[in-house]
Amino acid sequence: MSELVRFGVSLEKKLLDKFDNFIRERNYTNRSEALRDMIRQELVKKEWVEGEDVAGAITLIYDHHRKDLLGRITDIQHNHQQVIISTQHIHLDHDNCLEIVAVRGNPAEVQRLADVLKSIKGVKHGILNMSSTGKGIE
Amino acid sequence: MSELVRFGVSLEKKLLDKFDNFIRERNYTNRSEALRDMIRQELVKKEWVEGEDVAGAITLIYDHHRKDLLGRITDIQHNHQQVIISTQHIHLDHDNCLEIVAVRGNPAEVQRLADVLKSIKGVKHGILNMSSTGKGIE
Amino acid sequence: MSELVRFGVSLEKKLLDKFDNFIRERNYTNRSEALRDMIRQELVKKEWVEGEDVAGAITLIYDHHRKDLLGRITDIQHNHQQVIISTQHIHLDHDNCLEIVAVRGNPAEVQRLADVLKSIKGVKHGILNMSSTGKGIE
Amino acid sequence: MSELVRFGVSLEKKLLDKFDNFIRERNYTNRSEALRDMIRQELVKKEWVEGEDVAGAITLIYDHHRKDLLGRITDIQHNHQQVIISTQHIHLDHDNCLEIVAVRGNPAEVQRLADVLKSIKGVKHGILNMSSTGKGIE
Repeated sequence: MSELVRFGVSLEKKLLDKFDNFIRERNYTNRSEALRDMIRQELVKKEWVEGEDVAGAITLIYDHHRKDLLGRITDIQHNHQQVIISTQHIHLDHDNCLEIVAVRGNPAEVQRLADVLKSIKGVKHGILNMSSTGKGIE
Repeated sequence: MSELVRFGVSLEKKLLDKFDNFIRERNYTNRSEALRDMIRQELVKKEWVEGEDVAGAITLIYDHHRKDLLGRITDIQHNHQQVIISTQHIHLDHDNCLEIVAVRGNPAEVQRLADVLKSIKGVKHGILNMSSTGKGIE
Repeated sequence: MSELVRFGVSLEKKLLDKFDNFIRERNYTNRSEALRDMIRQELVKKEWVEGEDVAGAITLIYDHHRKDLLGRITDIQHNHQQVIISTQHIHLDHDNCLEIVAVRGNPAEVQRLADVLKSIKGVKHGILNMSSTGKGIE
Repeated sequence: MSELVRFGVSLEKKLLDKFDNFIRERNYTNRSEALRDMIRQELVKKEWVEGEDVAGAITLIYDHHRKDLLGRITDIQHNHQQVIISTQHIHLDHDNCLEIVAVRGNPAEVQRLADVLKSIKGVKHGILNMSSTGKGIE
């Protein structure tokens, strides 16, 4: 955790009132924490465009009764193991599975893995959650 | 323009360095201006969910040679004139038109108009730009 | 307008029912038109990442009373006239202006112009509407 | 898995060529699978606006050295256990943790939990991955 720096910000009174409202609604303890969050959001977006090492999660929904589906999903994950950390599997109901793959590595490779998993016949929904390794965003 | 208020913000040194970098890249003159912009972005999102009066632009691309297309687009705009301010029409090439409809009013009605225009056969692309009347975001 | 090709699509009955519902809600005349729209959305996204020539609109909200603001916005537009087609200006109320700049050209240059306009002190909200020249998306 | 229905779609030749390109790039085995995916994406968006029961993942990045942080994150998760299925915790490096919370339930409650977790001081980045229980999207 790096040293804290303090600086002044000027805001129009009415804009500040609305911001304070927003902070309360979103449960932030103070203005600095809310502003930190907005700044980090922008930095995470930048990391996915320009960075080398990102982290995130790929969420998949599928019906495990589909023939060969489990096998194919597992095969693909093994072929991309350099960007996969671990996988969490949840039985939503008799048919549907929620599988969350924790990923880390080069943004383009992670995106490629998400595309491949989404494209498998029988995967109903796939989405990539773009987050960060935390290193660049104190 | 309302009165300016000044307050202090604490940020981790490394996060601030990265933020200052971001500010330079995006051409902001100072930190306050960049933070104001992030705050306003959140407020505009809120206005479209909870507000009563928003403004924006609907951008359409279409081929004006399509039979009846111009007539239908114009008819629909007349039927929704309560949320339309004005329309800008640009001839991109021999076939393609770019039409930008400036809109203002209830968010649901504006969204409905965008959906209807997008759904017309011959409209190649339609998108709604969500902005603000400026009243709530000093 | 290019020649129409017809091909068959297989869909789960329940998924198709839900899709037909969606089509009605969004006002599409038939399934082909709705699917065309989804395909074009993906192609437009691709154009902005990989393409050379895109079109769109930059929407700005600002208070025209701010000193020098009009002058600066106009100066910047002149400096980027190679990607600007025309500008539509609307007086929302006594203070607030809605300005919609129709743009066309290289995606990175258009994005840069949007960043510069957004960053001007006094511009309350700026957003870039990413659309297409229509050439690549019949 | 519900019965398959086959229907015809008409597409402009040039649009179809571009679509086939897109399919190859994204690794889809055939057109139906790619179109199914686009349809499901729209249905999942609808579920989060209008639905009662959704699933997804909340991804958090934080420094576990921050005083009380682990305790607070755990407390909050217990207070919202009705929408939490399970949690996956990954040690990214000496300081940074990636925590992925599998969630299911009412969209507004899930969103509220994500807001609360994001707002905690010390959480560097938080993001909600909106997916589906799979029930509505065969």
